[in-house]
Amino acid sequence: MSNVKHIPSPVPGQATAVACSNIAFIKYWGNRDHRLRLPASGSLSMNLDSLTTRTVVRFDPALEHDELILNGEPAAEAARQRVSAFLTRVRQLAGISLAARVESANNFPMGAGIASSASAFAALSLAASAAAGLRLTERDLSRLARRGSGSACRSIPGGFVEWQAGENDADSYAFSIAPAEHWELSDCVAIVSRAHKTTGSSAGHPLADSSPLHAARLAQVNENLRRCRQAILERDFDALAAVTETDCHLMHAVMMTSSPPLIYWQPGTLTVMHAVQQWRRQGLPVCYTMDAGPNVHVICEVGAESQVVARLRELPNVLDVLVAHPGGPARLAR
Amino acid sequence: MSNVKHIPSPVPGQATAVACSNIAFIKYWGNRDHRLRLPASGSLSMNLDSLTTRTVVRFDPALEHDELILNGEPAAEAARQRVSAFLTRVRQLAGISLAARVESANNFPMGAGIASSASAFAALSLAASAAAGLRLTERDLSRLARRGSGSACRSIPGGFVEWQAGENDADSYAFSIAPAEHWELSDCVAIVSRAHKTTGSSAGHPLADSSPLHAARLAQVNENLRRCRQAILERDFDALAAVTETDCHLMHAVMMTSSPPLIYWQPGTLTVMHAVQQWRRQGLPVCYTMDAGPNVHVICEVGAESQVVARLRELPNVLDVLVAHPGGPARLAR
Repeated sequence: MSNVKHIPSPVPGQATAVACSNIAFIKYWGNRDHRLRLPASGSLSMNLDSLTTRTVVRFDPALEHDELILNGEPAAEAARQRVSAFLTRVRQLAGISLAARVESANNFPMGAGIASSASAFAALSLAASAAAGLRLTERDLSRLARRGSGSACRSIPGGFVEWQAGENDADSYAFSIAPAEHWELSDCVAIVSRAHKTTGSSAGHPLADSSPLHAARLAQVNENLRRCRQAILERDFDALAAVTETDCHLMHAVMMTSSPPLIYWQPGTLTVMHAVQQWRRQGLPVCYTMDAGPNVHVICEVGAESQVVARLRELPNVLDVLVAHPGGPARLAR
Repeated sequence: MSNVKHIPSPVPGQATAVACSNIAFIKYWGNRDHRLRLPASGSLSMNLDSLTTRTVVRFDPALEHDELILNGEPAAEAARQRVSAFLTRVRQLAGISLAARVESANNFPMGAGIASSASAFAALSLAASAAAGLRLTERDLSRLARRGSGSACRSIPGGFVEWQAGENDADSYAFSIAPAEHWELSDCVAIVSRAHKTTGSSAGHPLADSSPLHAARLAQVNENLRRCRQAILERDFDALAAVTETDCHLMHAVMMTSSPPLIYWQPGTLTVMHAVQQWRRQGLPVCYTMDAGPNVHVICEVGAESQVVARLRELPNVLDVLVAHPGGPARLAR
């Protein structure tokens, strides 16, 4: 576990950071404390090197209020307010009061099951804290990112990352269990819908408690976390596949039985799920998982990647396939 | 609750019976006792008048062993043995030892989410017991049918039927809570796959116990049964829709989290689910439920039927739509 490397900013009050998205093998769904974003359980993910957010934060005395530019366009007011509330937390930590201009761009489609809020709030945490003159440890950056979007705390450290649920704000943070180089996995993301999901994760988490199945999943999750951690440390793909699909099914079972039900799957989701299960029965080491969205993250070892991508592209309902490998920690950039 | 009407058989040792399939609003999934088919919970269904099995049973001294003709063809040996074991139970009740020839025909596709085993074992129970000279009450017929296929016990009484879980073989049977005429509902069955399912219900029930979510569903089911019963008695469609979809999601959540997972849904299943939810948001009173298969039972009041059928036929992935209305009890026929 390395701390964040700090590089001097070329412009005072300004910093740029890049952070990876991540895909969870053991999911984050539901909170013990919504305000602090203390999760109902621990979770475990892999950073995705090619799915990144790049964010520039500039604190500027000339600004009257915080501004947010998302992918080149002024953001919707709800998004701007969420970022502004987050910046206020950074200002409090730094003891400053300047407004900021935030420019953030993803290199992948937003709101479609790829965790854009994870990479976005990880990049924002690092850029904003650096621009504000803070020099936070990886742990404190992860805690800060968690307040913006829970899974963002897992995009601060590099490689394979566990978020320990913790008991309070101080001990609920993520850390690397293995660096990106530990295991050459591929995440072949089958895009089956480009539509923006109707219920985002932040609105979805509070619904977990309304599912009669939520507590039953939580009773399993520590054992599944243990299995997943062991599978990663031992590079045991079959074990990783089994526990990843199990927890994916458990989380979506909780989602679809909440009030109101959240059914994130689309027809193409099932096309890919059934195909992957069939390929595995035929001997191809591959498994799937879905976040709070319809797109399917198809995981394999890098040696099977070209075959998996080719097969995915032949499936009906698959619009595109994005490929990512284990990614590093959030980093400052010029 | 009327007892079964008995009509004299024109041929000694032979009888013909017709029974409806049924669709459960509150599902049967999992057993407390697999041998006796004592269910893990009560369930509640509606008989389907146009989806029937017609079965002729003839006990014949000339036969050396039981014969089974299914839809005009000699049945597979596994099916013949299951029916033969059931006939032996009937022979024991009647004190006879003759082998029988069974001819059974469905007017709907088998093994695709329409409960063919329910109508089949209901018709077989009535035809075989009558051919053997037994004159069973509706309750005892329902208990007998339960031993052949759990949900078959709900196809013995007419209309809207509840199967009380019971404590033992004697008190686990189904009874009508309202006759078919009570409520003019339509079941518009969207056929999205004609493939035979890979895991039939009899093989699936024992897997329920392997899901970490099964007990949590069971903890809810009596309250959902109560709501469903009340919705039917009060002809409250919105309440029926809510509890029916809730329990459908709960059962499929249990299925997909068993070991191995049972994922009965196909892409077209989700096409119909999302469409029905959208139509309901637009004001059309309609809901869905799926049994252990991919096809979607789309339930509405009869006044909305033509519109629902027309909309279903326009959906991608929908191969056909079968329409059924509340059906009567299993009956003897000539």
